[in-house]
Amino acid sequence: MIRVVLVEPEGEYNIGFVARLCKNFLVDELYIVNPRANISEAFRFSAGGREILEKAKIVNTFDKAINDVDIKIATSSIADNNGDILRKSIRPWEILPLIQGKKIALIFGRESVGLTREEIFKCDFLLYIPANPSYPVLNLSHAVGIVLYEIWKNRELLTNPQTSTISDQSIKLIDKYTEILYKLLKRSDDDYKMYIALKRAIIKGVKDEEEARVIVHFLRKLYTRIIHNEKEMNNVS
Amino acid sequence: MIRVVLVEPEGEYNIGFVARLCKNFLVDELYIVNPRANISEAFRFSAGGREILEKAKIVNTFDKAINDVDIKIATSSIADNNGDILRKSIRPWEILPLIQGKKIALIFGRESVGLTREEIFKCDFLLYIPANPSYPVLNLSHAVGIVLYEIWKNRELLTNPQTSTISDQSIKLIDKYTEILYKLLKRSDDDYKMYIALKRAIIKGVKDEEEARVIVHFLRKLYTRIIHNEKEMNNVS
Repeated sequence: MIRVVLVEPEGEYNIGFVARLCKNFLVDELYIVNPRANISEAFRFSAGGREILEKAKIVNTFDKAINDVDIKIATSSIADNNGDILRKSIRPWEILPLIQGKKIALIFGRESVGLTREEIFKCDFLLYIPANPSYPVLNLSHAVGIVLYEIWKNRELLTNPQTSTISDQSIKLIDKYTEILYKLLKRSDDDYKMYIALKRAIIKGVKDEEEARVIVHFLRKLYTRIIHNEKEMNNVS
Repeated sequence: MIRVVLVEPEGEYNIGFVARLCKNFLVDELYIVNPRANISEAFRFSAGGREILEKAKIVNTFDKAINDVDIKIATSSIADNNGDILRKSIRPWEILPLIQGKKIALIFGRESVGLTREEIFKCDFLLYIPANPSYPVLNLSHAVGIVLYEIWKNRELLTNPQTSTISDQSIKLIDKYTEILYKLLKRSDDDYKMYIALKRAIIKGVKDEEEARVIVHFLRKLYTRIIHNEKEMNNVS
């Protein structure tokens, strides 16, 4: 569940555009904290997002907009450089894994001054959209659009992956052969890492089914070579 | 070199926002074909992009905006489903590889009706931004923002890769051990594919330097195991 929260937005066009974007990228809820602009004027810019704007929840405190969500993501045009929050600073493409099955709020501040430090500290993550360091300040609704697009896109790639089109069968075989190769070499329990690292890297890095099959073939040949040699050695001895 | 081309834009706010976005994402040139809105009003929305709007080139035909570029990318809210152009339909994250070292134009149509079929056919690619199939139509400047952001982001990841932080040394060792393992198994010239496929998948899929070292260790052990066995066999025979 995704909620977009606008904190004290000042421009009616931005409110309207954000409603439209919520429709473009299937956002579940729009909350507006203390709007500083005329919402009825915002409808001029909402186009197909009219219904979302009609249903938008107007609240009078920041807390009321975030109380019932699992994860709160504050946004900033400026990569913040001090305070604990920094350690949790994230980029738009890193959001999706955080939100699976959770109720999240994406929180955008005022056009003029953004979010206050107090507001940011109430959140779990600080999101930063990378842009021209000499002028990174995006207009409010454009920042919203980019964040929503990234979530939509990554979700689509996840359900309908274009990058990883390898079959379950090939994944199983990559797993099988990296594991038995590791078992042949194993000296200590810690060696388990070799198997995990190689398996993961291959599954992540493989381009398509054809490449996957070539790699499985390679791993299988390595295995049979070792086994074959060692059988021969046993026969000799 | 990136040029943004707006074809007959109708809203002064969109023109202003696009100028600002050009500054946010370091676009080189802004061309406007037959503006249908008052450019002087657009400055109200251009914020830090004022200078880009001042320098924007106003032309009176579509051709004048695209004549001198190498690659022309038309944009559409609707995934077009007929005509040859379809075969070249691309997504925002696929642009970057096309434009390296080239002069490109990103071309955005009218708010009301987009680009004409004739205009689209003059272009080399048709770009489509994935969104809610039941309402995919983005506002003009938000579409511009998303496309420019994707190019900026991928360029940044390319120059400053966060995903691949592995050392040249590790890349060399991955290359070395996949190659010598392949040479041990080689039966025909075609087997070369095994080496290329495994090497590429690992380099692409490996998470960090630590994982890379574990994998190199794994590959080295496989190699020494085979060599060791075969030396012993030779000693025996």
